[in-house]
Amino acid sequence: MVIGFILISGEAILVHRWLPGSRNLKKSVHLCLQGLALACGVFGIWTKFQGQDGVVANFYSLHSWMGLICVSMFGAQWLVGFLSFWHKGEVRTTRVRVLPWHVFLGLYTYGLALVTAETGLLEKLTFLQTKGNILKRSTESAIVNGLGLGLALLGGAVILVAVSPKHQIPKSKIMYSK
Amino acid sequence: MVIGFILISGEAILVHRWLPGSRNLKKSVHLCLQGLALACGVFGIWTKFQGQDGVVANFYSLHSWMGLICVSMFGAQWLVGFLSFWHKGEVRTTRVRVLPWHVFLGLYTYGLALVTAETGLLEKLTFLQTKGNILKRSTESAIVNGLGLGLALLGGAVILVAVSPKHQIPKSKIMYSK
Repeated sequence: MVIGFILISGEAILVHRWLPGSRNLKKSVHLCLQGLALACGVFGIWTKFQGQDGVVANFYSLHSWMGLICVSMFGAQWLVGFLSFWHKGEVRTTRVRVLPWHVFLGLYTYGLALVTAETGLLEKLTFLQTKGNILKRSTESAIVNGLGLGLALLGGAVILVAVSPKHQIPKSKIMYSK
Repeated sequence: MVIGFILISGEAILVHRWLPGSRNLKKSVHLCLQGLALACGVFGIWTKFQGQDGVVANFYSLHSWMGLICVSMFGAQWLVGFLSFWHKGEVRTTRVRVLPWHVFLGLYTYGLALVTAETGLLEKLTFLQTKGNILKRSTESAIVNGLGLGLALLGGAVILVAVSPKHQIPKSKIMYSK
């Protein structure tokens, strides 16, 4: 789920920044990567709910509640993005009006995925520490905490790059390219 | 800490939106409210570390690590904000250059405070559930989970209002007010 919703989705968010080429190419790659991220996330949840207790038994913690909301929002975003940007009959003004909401809700879902990941890491660690399976001050705990801080840092960097203003292309260059 | 770093700090972020009056008044209220939020947060940490075990004994979890980073960033932001916006000898161009970073790092710190709060709620609940003090499916668990979701929703609303474009004042009105 971390690979899908944070690493791949983060790359998909930044496609519009690092990928050279036409807008259509960028949109296609963004849509494909987000689709892959969604598939990874859904696969992660599916494997998690394969235990003997069934689906509902594991669904009690804040981590699982937030995770469900996150996956639902991600799926809805992907669908709305698909419909808004790829439907041939779509009016341009509608797409332009939807775009800021798509960007905000996309980044919000990404942030929620980060929060869900952090709570997941902490839940597992607290569970193991309370059961006495690992020590509070051990290499395992430090690695999990380090991963948590790394994810928070990565998330900040992705959102900073996503919201920072784009470099202005000189006007003469735009005119020539037209 | 939730009152300081999330509720009061959230209001402080939105002062520039809801408070009528001059820019100077808004800045003063923003600075005072953020100072109050910082004081609340530091007081919360101080009470937490009054146990018999001392400061370092409680400092092992991802929640505590993130909390320390959050308080440090909050304090640094407050200081830089104070110096940049209130120092009389400050050059205007420097203040203008610092502003976008102040806004981004401020919202990032607010987001980090939200993540820290969520991990804190989940840590305490997992601890109590694993020890068998409360049931996994109980009113207490549902209230804590509901509080966690409420905080995530509040955070999203605050950030949305903070980053949404301001209403344009008609040009004629600006000219008259000058």
